[in-house]
Amino acid sequence: MSAEAPLGVTPAAEDGVGVAEMVEEAAVWCAVHGLVVGDRSQPRSGTVPGVGLVHAPFSLLPTHFPASFWKQACELAPIFNDLVDRVSLDGEFLQDSLSRTRQVDDFTARLLDIHVKMMEVNKKEDIRLGLHRSDYMLDSETNSLLQIELNTISSSFPGLGSLVSELHRTLLNRYGKDLGLDSKRIPRNWAATQFAEALGMAWTQFNNESAVIMMVVQPEERNMYDQYWLINHLKESYPFIICFLFPCNVKKTLAQVEAEGQVLPDGTLVVDGRTVSVVYFRAGYSPNDYPSEAEWKARLLMEQSSAIKCPSISYHLVGTKKIQQELAKPNVLERFLDNKEDIAKLRKCFAGLWSLDNEEIVKTAIEKPDLFVLKPQREGGGNNIYGHDLRETLIRLQKEQGEALAAYILMQRIFPRASLTHLVQGGVCFEDLTISELGIYGAYLRNKDKIVMNNQCGYLMRTKVSSSNEGGVAAGFAVLDSILLTDEVIAIYRLIIMNIY
Amino acid sequence: MSAEAPLGVTPAAEDGVGVAEMVEEAAVWCAVHGLVVGDRSQPRSGTVPGVGLVHAPFSLLPTHFPASFWKQACELAPIFNDLVDRVSLDGEFLQDSLSRTRQVDDFTARLLDIHVKMMEVNKKEDIRLGLHRSDYMLDSETNSLLQIELNTISSSFPGLGSLVSELHRTLLNRYGKDLGLDSKRIPRNWAATQFAEALGMAWTQFNNESAVIMMVVQPEERNMYDQYWLINHLKESYPFIICFLFPCNVKKTLAQVEAEGQVLPDGTLVVDGRTVSVVYFRAGYSPNDYPSEAEWKARLLMEQSSAIKCPSISYHLVGTKKIQQELAKPNVLERFLDNKEDIAKLRKCFAGLWSLDNEEIVKTAIEKPDLFVLKPQREGGGNNIYGHDLRETLIRLQKEQGEALAAYILMQRIFPRASLTHLVQGGVCFEDLTISELGIYGAYLRNKDKIVMNNQCGYLMRTKVSSSNEGGVAAGFAVLDSILLTDEVIAIYRLIIMNIY
Repeated sequence: MSAEAPLGVTPAAEDGVGVAEMVEEAAVWCAVHGLVVGDRSQPRSGTVPGVGLVHAPFSLLPTHFPASFWKQACELAPIFNDLVDRVSLDGEFLQDSLSRTRQVDDFTARLLDIHVKMMEVNKKEDIRLGLHRSDYMLDSETNSLLQIELNTISSSFPGLGSLVSELHRTLLNRYGKDLGLDSKRIPRNWAATQFAEALGMAWTQFNNESAVIMMVVQPEERNMYDQYWLINHLKESYPFIICFLFPCNVKKTLAQVEAEGQVLPDGTLVVDGRTVSVVYFRAGYSPNDYPSEAEWKARLLMEQSSAIKCPSISYHLVGTKKIQQELAKPNVLERFLDNKEDIAKLRKCFAGLWSLDNEEIVKTAIEKPDLFVLKPQREGGGNNIYGHDLRETLIRLQKEQGEALAAYILMQRIFPRASLTHLVQGGVCFEDLTISELGIYGAYLRNKDKIVMNNQCGYLMRTKVSSSNEGGVAAGFAVLDSILLTDEVIAIYRLIIMNIY
Repeated sequence: MSAEAPLGVTPAAEDGVGVAEMVEEAAVWCAVHGLVVGDRSQPRSGTVPGVGLVHAPFSLLPTHFPASFWKQACELAPIFNDLVDRVSLDGEFLQDSLSRTRQVDDFTARLLDIHVKMMEVNKKEDIRLGLHRSDYMLDSETNSLLQIELNTISSSFPGLGSLVSELHRTLLNRYGKDLGLDSKRIPRNWAATQFAEALGMAWTQFNNESAVIMMVVQPEERNMYDQYWLINHLKESYPFIICFLFPCNVKKTLAQVEAEGQVLPDGTLVVDGRTVSVVYFRAGYSPNDYPSEAEWKARLLMEQSSAIKCPSISYHLVGTKKIQQELAKPNVLERFLDNKEDIAKLRKCFAGLWSLDNEEIVKTAIEKPDLFVLKPQREGGGNNIYGHDLRETLIRLQKEQGEALAAYILMQRIFPRASLTHLVQGGVCFEDLTISELGIYGAYLRNKDKIVMNNQCGYLMRTKVSSSNEGGVAAGFAVLDSILLTDEVIAIYRLIIMNIY
C-alpha cells in the first residue's frame, strides 16, 4: 500500500511535473521559510533553538474539502468561543459533570481541586482569553461535519499550520496549472498572526506597559518553532511595546514558575522579577507535564493571580471529553446559549456521545460495535477502542459495574473517506491511504461585559495514514496539511487528482 | 581565551541585555528565516533538502568597519569586474603567465588545456557573465585595505550573507539602543537578489524562452540553502518565465552533465533534454570536483557550447593566484585598463605579491619571515606558510631550484586587528579573539560591445578565530558576519563594545 521513494529517485510523472521535483521544491521551501521542527533523533533539538532541525512532515498537495462544510466549520468558531465562556462561568455544572470522572482520573481530579479552590474564594476572571481549536471530520455515512473534540488549552500548530497553507499556495502557483488545481481555492490562513494579535490585545487590556506575556512551555519541545512563530508575529505587531517597555517575552516551564514565581498581595503575578500580564499555556494539558508537586503548585499559583490565564482552569475543564458529552445531551446547550440558530448549528456538528450509564446505547454498541468508538475519559493518554475489543470491553465493564464505567465515553463512529496522499517526512515521500481532520482556530477575548474579540482564526488540516487494524478511523503517522475548497458535496478522492499528472 | 556558554546558561549582562537571550533570539531567527546549512554530523544533510538542518555559524553582533574603507571596497567592484573581462580576452597572457604553474599543478594544467582548445578554435564568448567576490582585509600596519584574493568561480554565500545582515539588523533594532549600536549603520545587503537578477538578465540576453539556467553543483553540498536562496530570488524576479516557459531550474553535477549532456552542431548545450542558456558553476573550482575523466569531459563540453558560462574557462583562470601576482607587477594593469584613476585604485589595494624567481624578495623574506606569507600556487588546497617554516621552506627551495619554485607565491603579510567576538555555532555561544575578511560581490554582464550590467552587489563578512600558532593571520573556525559602519579610521575593538553592556 505504501511505496517509499527517496528524494531524487523519481516516481516520475507522465507528462512534465515530477513528484520528486515537487518534493524537493517543497522541502527546500520548508527549510528556508521556517516550516521546521526539532528532529526526534537529535538529542538537543527539543531544548536548543537552531539545531537538529528538520522540515515538518507535510502532505505534498492540499486536501480537497467541500466549501459548504468549510463555511459551516468557520461559522461554528465564534459560537464555540462564546459557549466555552458561558460554560466556564457555571462552576457547579463543571464540578457536577466531572464528579464521576474525578473518581477514575487523577489528572482531572487535580484540575478540579484547583477549580474548587477558585470557587471557594469566589475568584473572578474579568479578562478572559481563549485560544481554541475545534477539530472536525467529514463523516461519509451521514455526509456531515462532525466535531471530534474542542481544544481549549495549548491548541498547537497555529504557526506551522499557516505556513503549510503558504507552502501549498506556492506549489500550486507553480504546478497548479498542470495539475488542474487553483491556488486561489486554498483559504488564506492567518492563524499565527491572529493568535498573536489576540495575545497582544489581551496584554493591552491588562493595561500595564511593563508587564510581560509569559509562555508556559515544556522543558523539552520539538515543536518550538510553532511557538516562536507566534512570538515573531507578536513582535511584529507590537514592536514598540516589546522592545522598549518590556525587554523580552518570557518563556518558562511550570517548574521554573514554581521556583521563580510569586503572587503579590494585590494579586500581581511576578515571575523572575517580571510582572506577568498574560500566561499563555503551551504546556500543562497532559499529566506528563506535572511530574511532581512543584508543577501543580505553579499551576495553582498562576490561577490565584490576577494575570490573564489562557486558559483559566475553568476554560481548561470545559475542553474535557466529559463536558463535550454533557453538552451533547438534550437541553444542555439551552442552559448556556439563547440564540436558537446557534444552538441548532452546534447540535448539527455533535456526533452521538453517551456515558456508559446509558444502558440502551451500551446494548446497541455491543450488538453493533462497528458503529461506535469507546473513548477513555482520561485526558492525555489511552487509545480509542473499536470493533471486537469494544464489545469485549463493554461486556466486561457491565459485569464490573461501579466507577469503572465512568472511565469511558461512547461516541458515534465517524467514517471519513480515505484517499491516496503523497506524504513527505524526513525528506522522503511516500504514498498512502489517509484520512483528514480539520481544526478551526478561534480567539475570544472578553473584558468584563465587553467582548473585545470573538473570531475564527485560520485552520489546521492534519492528514493521517489510516491504519486498517484500528478500523480505518484511528490513525497513525500524521502530517500537516491545508485544504483546497471544492464545490462538490463529497470530497473528491485525492487518488483521482494524483492520477491526472 | 574561549569560554563556552551553552544556551540558557547565561553569561549575563550587567544591565539588561543578556548574551544568552540574544543568542536564543538569533538562533530562532536563523531557524525560521532559512539562515541554515546542512549539519556535518547528519549523513543525508548534504544531499536531501530539508533534513539535518542547523543554523549557519554566525557572529552575534556585526563587526565594526570604517565607512571610508567600505566605500573604497565598493568602488573597486566594477573596476575588478571590468579588469577580469579585459584580461580574459588576452589568451596569450593567461597561457604565458601560467606556463610555469602548469608544470607544478595538474589542476591548473587541465584548465589550461581546455583554454588552449578554445583558443585553437578561436572560440568567442559573445555574452559574458561574471559573478565575482573580491576579498579584503584591513592591514593595521599600513592602515590600508588590501586584497586577499579575487574569486571568479563559485563565489559562495551571496544568499546566507544577505541574511546575516538582516539578522544583525533585527537584533540591533531590538537591542541596539542598549548596546549603543545603530542598525542603520549596517549596509543593506542585496547580494542574493542581485546575483539572481544577473542570472536572469543573462538568460534574457540568451534570448531563448525555453532554455533553462543550469546550476552545476557538487554531489554533496551542505551549503545548498545558500544556492537555493539564489533560485528562490530568481523565481521571484522571473516567475512567469520560470513557471510557464521552462518547468524548473536544473541542478546537475559535473558527472550528470557528462552522462546527460551534448552539444548540438549549432553549439546549443542540451542536458537531460533541455536547452541550457546559462551554466552557473557552484562546483568545478577544486581538483576534488574532478574525481574522474568524466568531470573534465563535462567541463570541456560546456565550454565548447554556446551557453553562457559563469564563469568561462578564461574568467576562471583570471582568478588564479598567479594571475593576481602578475597583475600586481609594474605596468601590467596598464595593458588592460586605460583609466589611470581606476588603475591607481586597484594598485592601492594590492598587497605585495612576488614569484620566487625574484631573488631579492626571497632574500628579504628569509631575513624577515614575519613580514611575509608563502602561499602554495596550487588551487584548492594547501595551507599558507608563516614564520620559521617560511624561512626553512625558502632555503630548501633555493637549494633545489628548478620548477619547485613555481609552486609558491610570496605575499606581503597582512596584520588585521584582532578583536573579541561572540561566535555562535551549533547553538553554543563562545567568545574568542577574531579577525575579519570582507568580501565584496560584483556582477558583470556583457553582450558583445554592450555592458548590460557592471555592479557592486552586496557583501560578505567572514570572521574567523585567529589561531596564534599560525601567527594570527591564518584563521581557523569561521562564522558569517556583517558590518557596522564607523566613522573612525581604525576599527574599534569589538572588545570595547561587548564591555558596554
